[in-house]
Amino acid sequence: MLISMYDASVTVFLHNLNQLSHLLDKGLEHAKANGIDPATLVEARLAPDMLPLSKQVQIASDTAKLAAARLTGIAAPSYEDNESTFEELQARIAKTREWLQGLARETFAASEERAVSFKAGPTELNFAGLGYLLHFAIPNFFFHVTTAYDILRHNGVPIGKRDYLGRA
Amino acid sequence: MLISMYDASVTVFLHNLNQLSHLLDKGLEHAKANGIDPATLVEARLAPDMLPLSKQVQIASDTAKLAAARLTGIAAPSYEDNESTFEELQARIAKTREWLQGLARETFAASEERAVSFKAGPTELNFAGLGYLLHFAIPNFFFHVTTAYDILRHNGVPIGKRDYLGRA
Repeated sequence: MLISMYDASVTVFLHNLNQLSHLLDKGLEHAKANGIDPATLVEARLAPDMLPLSKQVQIASDTAKLAAARLTGIAAPSYEDNESTFEELQARIAKTREWLQGLARETFAASEERAVSFKAGPTELNFAGLGYLLHFAIPNFFFHVTTAYDILRHNGVPIGKRDYLGRA
Repeated sequence: MLISMYDASVTVFLHNLNQLSHLLDKGLEHAKANGIDPATLVEARLAPDMLPLSKQVQIASDTAKLAAARLTGIAAPSYEDNESTFEELQARIAKTREWLQGLARETFAASEERAVSFKAGPTELNFAGLGYLLHFAIPNFFFHVTTAYDILRHNGVPIGKRDYLGRA
């Protein structure tokens, strides 16, 4: 009946960042095959006041590394959020995955009870590690991965559920 | 370092189905305030060959109840997928949550190792319970909740990340 905080966080982020990379591959391929400037996809949004694809990828990366950092107490690398091409977004995903892969399973010991506090906008949020992971970090992570998918799909990129889920 | 399969499944589905209900409330409220036929939102899609809002809600419900059923061996209720109004979609979410709330925590004992096999289209998928939950059910669930959000947001409903995440 018991699973580890490491499995519920790092393995989930690694798997789905890999799928996000695959979705971006499909986006770039579609642009090249149809004479579309790839930058139009990188900058695409679902609404004028929603964030563009580039930002969805940056926040998915941030959510994953910040979750691991907050659960372990290990400082996450800071990135500049200046990616503006598919290649740069792929590099962002790759370095995020590399950092996550370097975290030892043991560093998540007792992280389900660890106090996690941070500011979201003007609001101070206080969680225990378990609630933070299950009710903030994971929903937030999938929000940005799925919205990246939805932006690409809305713009005609031929992707389906299998491209999103991959194989476990 | 250990958390329960119940926490990682049922509590996540309950919390986020509740947020999905809140998002639909905001959608109906926006339609009423702006003289929009609510049916146009229920039938809205992000691409002509993507599923409409109604179906996103139905599949989020299905993913949650099927995950709990497959992890426990308890049969899930079957619904007709005939909801076509905001009120009917709310009723669908409410009965899904009610069924999930009735599941005893103990029924998830050893579910991380339980064999889970089912067909997804033509493909037979075989998982252990842990991989099924973390790498199929949870990503799939959030895909449909987020896509429901994205459809509403794309159509002008004034919702933000806080409406999606709620408070844990």
